[in-house]
Amino acid sequence: MAYVDIVTILAVLQFIVFAMKVAGARGRYGVKAPATTGNEIFERYFRVQQNTLELLLALIPGLYLFSRYLSPVAAAVLGVIYLGGREIYAATYVRDPAKRGPGFGLSMFPVLVLLIGGLFGAVRQAVGF
Amino acid sequence: MAYVDIVTILAVLQFIVFAMKVAGARGRYGVKAPATTGNEIFERYFRVQQNTLELLLALIPGLYLFSRYLSPVAAAVLGVIYLGGREIYAATYVRDPAKRGPGFGLSMFPVLVLLIGGLFGAVRQAVGF
Amino acid sequence: MAYVDIVTILAVLQFIVFAMKVAGARGRYGVKAPATTGNEIFERYFRVQQNTLELLLALIPGLYLFSRYLSPVAAAVLGVIYLGGREIYAATYVRDPAKRGPGFGLSMFPVLVLLIGGLFGAVRQAVGF
Repeated sequence: MAYVDIVTILAVLQFIVFAMKVAGARGRYGVKAPATTGNEIFERYFRVQQNTLELLLALIPGLYLFSRYLSPVAAAVLGVIYLGGREIYAATYVRDPAKRGPGFGLSMFPVLVLLIGGLFGAVRQAVGF
Repeated sequence: MAYVDIVTILAVLQFIVFAMKVAGARGRYGVKAPATTGNEIFERYFRVQQNTLELLLALIPGLYLFSRYLSPVAAAVLGVIYLGGREIYAATYVRDPAKRGPGFGLSMFPVLVLLIGGLFGAVRQAVGF
Repeated sequence: MAYVDIVTILAVLQFIVFAMKVAGARGRYGVKAPATTGNEIFERYFRVQQNTLELLLALIPGLYLFSRYLSPVAAAVLGVIYLGGREIYAATYVRDPAKRGPGFGLSMFPVLVLLIGGLFGAVRQAVGF
């Protein structure tokens, strides 16, 4: 269970690092709060952060429910794949948004496996198998 | 407890479906990443997803804390109402944002009941009743 | 543990209040859905809500993991500091975005302590100390 907790915290810290890069890009590209548009490169950093926010909210319940019903170790491994996928996503998106596909897929895939696995396990328990 | 877990995963999967519709609307209405504006219909899909992100983050703690302190079955029922309310919200918002009120209310109401019920239960336990 | 639950619900309710202020600002400054830009004051309310969404998603896992591995009471106290910091952040941001630093720091700091403390505790348990 501690492994799942470690992966959860690493995913949140990764998200905070992406947020800090947005703050840095504000200064570098002259996008003053509250604006979030006006510079293409800033907008890339901002969208990386926003997309990670969305996926992180799906990842965390997936991690814990997959872990409860199926396997904590497999949940943690899927979480590590997510972390790597997000790093690739962030790096490629900032260079060229059109190239964001593979990193997106590599981080979305483990999230879907966690959610669908967790759903399978919870339904199995609810129907009493 | 498994019922609450099932509702949680369904709510996350519903959110992912809304996100996929945003991705589809990007292509259909020619809004290239990182932009999130420029086409009114795209912006409706995008706002449905964003608003659901906000509500989902309030729903999940509400589900588990209401479940722990009051009733897992009632929590799951409130979660199902939320799921239906969000479907109505998404369908009406995309057709006409001015009509989004009822679906919003029907998904916001169970979230508030979950949170206030959970708060009541947690405070009652903290003061030792 | 009930104290951590109370702080979690208060943080979610605070976020919902910020969201209601955005809805109010829509009417007052004439920003019709789905738009989220077009009026500087509206955009400040909107950014307060968005930034709180981001931080809330980091706060909640931090609260529970710090609480599990280190101390529920200290977690709750850090959560109360977060709540105060967010109030200052919201009030100052709406008046003048350039003055948002102290309130941001006061709400970000407890989140980082919760996450790093939780990570420390989880790693310590994983390696078997």
